[in-house]
Amino acid sequence: MGSHRFDVAVYAGRLAAAAGATVEAGLDGLVITPGYDLRYLTGSRAQTLERLTALVVPASGDPTVVVPRLELASLKGSAIAELGLAVRDWVDGDDPYRLVSAALGGAPAATAVTDSMPALHLLPLAGELGVPPVLATGILRELRMVKQECEIDALRKAGSAIDRVHARVPEFLVPGRTEADVAADIAEAIVAEGHSEVSFIIVGSGPHGADPHHSYSGRELQVGDVVVVDIGGCYEPGYQSDSTRTYSIGEPSPEVAQQYSVLQRAQRAAFDAVRPGVTAEQVDAAAREVLADAGLAEFFVHRTGHGIGLSVHEEPYIVSGNDLPLTAGMSFSIEPGIYFPGRWGARIEDIVVVTEDGALAVNNRPHELVVVPVS
Amino acid sequence: MGSHRFDVAVYAGRLAAAAGATVEAGLDGLVITPGYDLRYLTGSRAQTLERLTALVVPASGDPTVVVPRLELASLKGSAIAELGLAVRDWVDGDDPYRLVSAALGGAPAATAVTDSMPALHLLPLAGELGVPPVLATGILRELRMVKQECEIDALRKAGSAIDRVHARVPEFLVPGRTEADVAADIAEAIVAEGHSEVSFIIVGSGPHGADPHHSYSGRELQVGDVVVVDIGGCYEPGYQSDSTRTYSIGEPSPEVAQQYSVLQRAQRAAFDAVRPGVTAEQVDAAAREVLADAGLAEFFVHRTGHGIGLSVHEEPYIVSGNDLPLTAGMSFSIEPGIYFPGRWGARIEDIVVVTEDGALAVNNRPHELVVVPVS
Repeated sequence: MGSHRFDVAVYAGRLAAAAGATVEAGLDGLVITPGYDLRYLTGSRAQTLERLTALVVPASGDPTVVVPRLELASLKGSAIAELGLAVRDWVDGDDPYRLVSAALGGAPAATAVTDSMPALHLLPLAGELGVPPVLATGILRELRMVKQECEIDALRKAGSAIDRVHARVPEFLVPGRTEADVAADIAEAIVAEGHSEVSFIIVGSGPHGADPHHSYSGRELQVGDVVVVDIGGCYEPGYQSDSTRTYSIGEPSPEVAQQYSVLQRAQRAAFDAVRPGVTAEQVDAAAREVLADAGLAEFFVHRTGHGIGLSVHEEPYIVSGNDLPLTAGMSFSIEPGIYFPGRWGARIEDIVVVTEDGALAVNNRPHELVVVPVS
Repeated sequence: MGSHRFDVAVYAGRLAAAAGATVEAGLDGLVITPGYDLRYLTGSRAQTLERLTALVVPASGDPTVVVPRLELASLKGSAIAELGLAVRDWVDGDDPYRLVSAALGGAPAATAVTDSMPALHLLPLAGELGVPPVLATGILRELRMVKQECEIDALRKAGSAIDRVHARVPEFLVPGRTEADVAADIAEAIVAEGHSEVSFIIVGSGPHGADPHHSYSGRELQVGDVVVVDIGGCYEPGYQSDSTRTYSIGEPSPEVAQQYSVLQRAQRAAFDAVRPGVTAEQVDAAAREVLADAGLAEFFVHRTGHGIGLSVHEEPYIVSGNDLPLTAGMSFSIEPGIYFPGRWGARIEDIVVVTEDGALAVNNRPHELVVVPVS
């Protein structure tokens, strides 16, 4: 299972840092049910079930894992045994919420919970604690946002893998084939190029490219289509790839070529704006300004990017209103797009990591509109 | 998108019933974020995101869907437009929790939320409402548990599809191949036989069969292995299949044959116990008694079954302590197993639907240990 998680020392360090952040926030502890935070802290891929599984990290003292006896096997593959965490298993008839409260030292005054904890567990836990918990997002944000070397390495490998898929996309884009046909080829290529699973596939051809949330359909590709291909997968030990390139089946019209070139400059401007101390919204503004100067502001209808790591969408969000200063190690997408309803759309997306003095792109395919020759 | 959901009348009826149950429970309304409850009530497959999407069903008055403007497209394919529900879209800067409160008529005193609502949305919603919500599980339980004709039809089609996969499993079980090789063949067959996606695959060979939560591994199949194969997929419009058969590579030992025959009688006894008015725990006890009489009680380490429908695990749970009386239309698994740590295990699982006077199995493969000839 080695390749499914990092070395135990990585998780030991993260748990210690999480406990430290908990103390600093004046809280008594964290309660983390299955999800990305649990995977981040322990390498566990346990799933949320109707029976409570929870990692309890008290501000002082050792963490405890509360787990249904039946699900003990779900801890295998995680670092929990190697970390020597206390495991408190329970059977039907026990009160797991009381076990959580006890693992927090009993009668905790202020507790934080993982943002994915479902109401099914949160409401009875809040009842047991007597005081509504707060979100752990703020406590884990800094940790989760600033990637360690091993994470950056994983993101780079994921980036190279999705680049290899984009290199093969032109051969899939044959007029008469459907978006769904192309998506099936891409799904196979995502796994063949080293991902452990497909996370998402968008093949937006012609007018479908103008909908940033289109997935794929039975529409047949036609000569002259502009096609947005936005794809990603999960690369072990669990890091996500996410890259968009735009293709033209046959030569693009002068209008498409011209507007695409503005988009290319907008993407580059946002990339060039990235360095420690610059805020997330300044990066968003850098892309937006280039489009505005060309009269295209109204056609860029979404934020410039989102953080990425174990999950496809996480902090930091590169969006107007987010005055978070970037720091080295943060990773996020830079993906401006232009969308002309009923006609066509285009998007260019790379994942970047903030470095000491700028940014490193983990995707390295050319940014030009990829013209697919028509025979 | 027709095949991805039922006719609009199905959802109209469910929404009206949900509102009725809300009134009966003395609540002011329901708040349902994306998940199975939302899919049940509207046919929507929207996903939970950091921005709030919620169906608000007030005790009196019309339901409202609160949705980020960017995610309006995610409502496509659902019955929301055809139902004529009010759609209140919002953009960054708006307070979506206030919109929910307003859709509940303002200042609601008692609200119920879907059990999957994440803390990320539940904590700010509870803050806005001023009163902690309760779980909607109790309000939607009856509705979700008792399947309509169209749902039973979908479960039967899903059952037939997974039966066809089990019919092909013997050809996959060749000594020297790994559990993962077999799982890959099964995954392909699950889709080829009509499912829209694979939900889970367990291939537990030899000692791995003794772990009810094993998935599959690199272990190579050997002559003499007993192999537990527990598989399921999603069948449009979204209903789950789930069936287990146990295979023997070559002739089983007399001990295996003898103990398996007890398991077969235990599964039959539970099936025969099912009829309206019998409790869930009585069905569990029926299987357990047969095993206990043969001295095998301690090797049956899990509950007898779980409800199934849009989700693989839902109410009713067929477990000791659940005194819920069964009623016609409930659907659940009957899946006793025996597990001998380090040696072998076996399980037999069918999905059944409670009828007016007994039970109907949606899986119809023979229950015998399937002996795979060795060449």
